[in-house]
Amino acid sequence: MNGKLAGWDDTVVALATPPGIGAIGVIRLSGSKAIDIANDLFPSKDLTQQSSHTIHVGVIKDQETELDEVVVSLYKNPRSYTGEDVVEISGHGSPFVLQQIINACIQRGARLAKPGEFTQRAFLKGKLDLAQAEAVADLIASNTAASQKTALHNIRGGFSIKLKELREQLIKFSALIELELDFSQEDVEFADRKQFYELISELSKLTDQLINSFRLGNVIKNGVSVAIVGKPNAGKSTLLNALLQEDRAIVSEIPGTTRDTIEELINIDGILFRLIDTAGIRKHTSDIIETIGVAKSLGKMKTADLVLYLFDVNETETEVGNMKSELEKQQLNFLLIGNKIDGSDEKHIRDKFSTLENIIFISAKGHKHLEVLKERMVDKVISGQVQAEDTIVTNARHYHALKEVARSLADIKQGLDNKLAGDLLALDIRRALHYLGEITGEITNEDQLDYIFSKFCIGK
Amino acid sequence: MNGKLAGWDDTVVALATPPGIGAIGVIRLSGSKAIDIANDLFPSKDLTQQSSHTIHVGVIKDQETELDEVVVSLYKNPRSYTGEDVVEISGHGSPFVLQQIINACIQRGARLAKPGEFTQRAFLKGKLDLAQAEAVADLIASNTAASQKTALHNIRGGFSIKLKELREQLIKFSALIELELDFSQEDVEFADRKQFYELISELSKLTDQLINSFRLGNVIKNGVSVAIVGKPNAGKSTLLNALLQEDRAIVSEIPGTTRDTIEELINIDGILFRLIDTAGIRKHTSDIIETIGVAKSLGKMKTADLVLYLFDVNETETEVGNMKSELEKQQLNFLLIGNKIDGSDEKHIRDKFSTLENIIFISAKGHKHLEVLKERMVDKVISGQVQAEDTIVTNARHYHALKEVARSLADIKQGLDNKLAGDLLALDIRRALHYLGEITGEITNEDQLDYIFSKFCIGK
Repeated sequence: MNGKLAGWDDTVVALATPPGIGAIGVIRLSGSKAIDIANDLFPSKDLTQQSSHTIHVGVIKDQETELDEVVVSLYKNPRSYTGEDVVEISGHGSPFVLQQIINACIQRGARLAKPGEFTQRAFLKGKLDLAQAEAVADLIASNTAASQKTALHNIRGGFSIKLKELREQLIKFSALIELELDFSQEDVEFADRKQFYELISELSKLTDQLINSFRLGNVIKNGVSVAIVGKPNAGKSTLLNALLQEDRAIVSEIPGTTRDTIEELINIDGILFRLIDTAGIRKHTSDIIETIGVAKSLGKMKTADLVLYLFDVNETETEVGNMKSELEKQQLNFLLIGNKIDGSDEKHIRDKFSTLENIIFISAKGHKHLEVLKERMVDKVISGQVQAEDTIVTNARHYHALKEVARSLADIKQGLDNKLAGDLLALDIRRALHYLGEITGEITNEDQLDYIFSKFCIGK
Repeated sequence: MNGKLAGWDDTVVALATPPGIGAIGVIRLSGSKAIDIANDLFPSKDLTQQSSHTIHVGVIKDQETELDEVVVSLYKNPRSYTGEDVVEISGHGSPFVLQQIINACIQRGARLAKPGEFTQRAFLKGKLDLAQAEAVADLIASNTAASQKTALHNIRGGFSIKLKELREQLIKFSALIELELDFSQEDVEFADRKQFYELISELSKLTDQLINSFRLGNVIKNGVSVAIVGKPNAGKSTLLNALLQEDRAIVSEIPGTTRDTIEELINIDGILFRLIDTAGIRKHTSDIIETIGVAKSLGKMKTADLVLYLFDVNETETEVGNMKSELEKQQLNFLLIGNKIDGSDEKHIRDKFSTLENIIFISAKGHKHLEVLKERMVDKVISGQVQAEDTIVTNARHYHALKEVARSLADIKQGLDNKLAGDLLALDIRRALHYLGEITGEITNEDQLDYIFSKFCIGK
């Protein structure tokens, strides 16, 4: 661990709360000089003499200039987020005033923290492993109950615990195999091959489970992209608005959630659906089948995780049947939705399309059967997936590392089948261990770490 | 004070940090149930048994659902911002997660706080007087060193202390005058009229000083609106960009400061200059003298606190002299600026315009003499004003109340001159006391309070 700590003994500072005007803003200082720097700014009390986990109210002064009345929270190493001495200064939420406090800290020897540097320090001090650290970023970005739950589960080590079990068992066998190498002249087998084969099978099963969870994990983390398509006047924008109207509050009561995106977000049962290119739908300009031809519209649909194909129930069964065949031929993940049922008798309509299966009949305008549609949307995502209660892989980096682990395990299995010598098996085992270690951060390189933490927000 | 507390014994909750994604977000709970509510969400430890000003790390759970890993700070009444029990929950900065924690608090009996309600409660509990409470909002909104200093001075009671001195002395005399009324048949004078006259003169002087400080106070708080005007090609947009280029960093390094305004902000020596209608200048569409005529352009100039009138030094002295006379005739607060001196000899140019006084010669393009211009801009604002070290009135409500105080004091003076009877003087004294009390909140009505605090941000 020592090697990792080189160059990390300086003290860093950053605003930890979102930028902008608020009631309060919190500045975080971490490092060996954190308490000294805060103490120099805080004449009301000698902070160096206070215990950890205490709160102190007073004035922050930059020499003779009073900057703010603040609350200072003290966390002494190792009992802090980073494992270093940490001081949190909670001031009035004026960006100008907060900036001045940060500047005063910098003048006293602190350095502005890089994005994610507090969490990176926590990792380097062994407070979190890498998978846990990455889950912190996921939790901050979480915007549904499912993504929150998975991230929190992983922060608390849920994912790491599974991987560590895997890794420890593998290490045990690896040690035995390596031992055989030392006695290679004597043709002994310390590692019971049958037992080892069983272990590898078990590990493969677990790895595959984790890999398979990534599709759901990705959905939980990033949401499901949905394209609403159909002919002009099928009611696409009415459906969009109806769905938004029912669920909008859930998303839009959180300021800033959708600010930077042109997508409309709908949260159904904790799953986030991202309605792509809906600006177009709203302006009635994306009647894409009509305006840019079937080929292009299919391209559009293919980029979506889920296609909601909307048709007017006044169309003939043949027309709808042809479109359904086309969607199936293109291997799209779609729901076929008959709209405008409010004009006529519902049973009559169902009879008319009885040869076509799995149609959802709705009235977008009348908000009729929207619940059924939403249930089916969720089913389309969850069906065949692992349960959300299990450990779920949500991180693409972990997914790719797990694929390498799976590949190595397959090689080991094949090697055992072919009665490969211990030294050759050992190489594959080491490769599996390497990739497992990369996920939890037992094996890292600095560039990779910097890349991972650079995606964090500043102050975390 | 008791009357004011009616209906304030419930517990309120709000996000105290700015909305949006950040490393951390802080939720504030205040009221008699604050600790019980937090305790119910925090199974790791019994918060009801912990001392004030302590910090506790653990998981927030809404029944069986884990919501976040948080830090809880405890402040027991009366040692808190509001004077009530206060709990601050510092969680991961996901708006979604924070909203869930707030919802869990509401489910347990808390109510969403109104804007400024925490500070309003602090006022009602006697932790702050009204002028101090209003300074809290000013500090949060402060964006220059001067506004920060004034607000902090007032939060700490600087303004209130002056007013209280005034009020106490007035009350003493008021009591003596009222005493005379009880003995009105006997024609006695308990209050020494000469001493009283001296006091009223002294109070008038202080009141006038405070009233006069409002112009500077307003500038400190709201900035100085500046119009850059001149003929087409005088170099208005070049000057704007040159000024912004030099000072922009000071303002724009604070995210969100200028987001909601189309004005450009420049901070010179702690004074904020707001360059109005600069979007127009940038697009070269606001060559207003040419396009909308002199009359309209003068209207534009009159709305500004300061006009920067820019001319090309290649114009004749007569042209410039005519414009100067026009600006003076309109009683504008202006600076006359000769631009484009880089083309020719500076002394030659100065000689050419020697009959016209107080011209500032610059090269906007060459960034020449911009320092002189900025100094003169600050001089125009500060000159003849009280010193920034003194107590300064920044609040329009206080300004108007002080005007009423001044009017009452003048009436008292006149009454004394006319040897008015005590009962008539008493009326004027009571009026002066009333308006002084309105500023610090000794005299309030609920509507007024609600109005004052409604201008605060939520969570403060």
